[in-house]
Amino acid sequence: MKFGKIKHMVIFCLKHDKDSPEEKKFLQDGESLLKQIPGVNNFEVLKQTSSKNDYDFGFSMEFNDEQAYEIYSKHPSHVSFVEQRWLKEVESFLEIDFKNI
Amino acid sequence: MKFGKIKHMVIFCLKHDKDSPEEKKFLQDGESLLKQIPGVNNFEVLKQTSSKNDYDFGFSMEFNDEQAYEIYSKHPSHVSFVEQRWLKEVESFLEIDFKNI
Repeated sequence: MKFGKIKHMVIFCLKHDKDSPEEKKFLQDGESLLKQIPGVNNFEVLKQTSSKNDYDFGFSMEFNDEQAYEIYSKHPSHVSFVEQRWLKEVESFLEIDFKNI
Repeated sequence: MKFGKIKHMVIFCLKHDKDSPEEKKFLQDGESLLKQIPGVNNFEVLKQTSSKNDYDFGFSMEFNDEQAYEIYSKHPSHVSFVEQRWLKEVESFLEIDFKNI
């Protein structure tokens, strides 16, 4: 990752059954909605496979700077995804942000 | 990240004072020792900046497959770093592994 960029990740569990259509739909909708937001780069939907934490999935993305991150956070598509889907379908989550040292 | 690869990350806090020489040395030694292990790709030392968790730093690396991950885990340089430095200098940590879906 280039200096100055921010890698934003969230690891999470869903309320849906494992391998259910609802699980798949949440991941697909999240990806298609969030990666369209201006300033979002390298969006990835990931499976969390370590047995040393309790989370099942991850969304990962990069921003060029703090301003792009703020635009994302306040963007109507993000706000609406959080309100309409995230708060209803996510069981637990942890947010992580990385910068280069 | 290409399909089949594994991204391994650990986020952590050190027992050392913030911005101390000991903190810097731990991060530098960790990077120089661990990234030399065969099969470790894209090793990064990161600052964890989200206020929504309690961790200060991250090590991130990629492996081509499970076998490379296992070689890393059992490698004498890794085992010795964990025993000699990690267990003594790290306050708390969380491991995360990602695969593509």
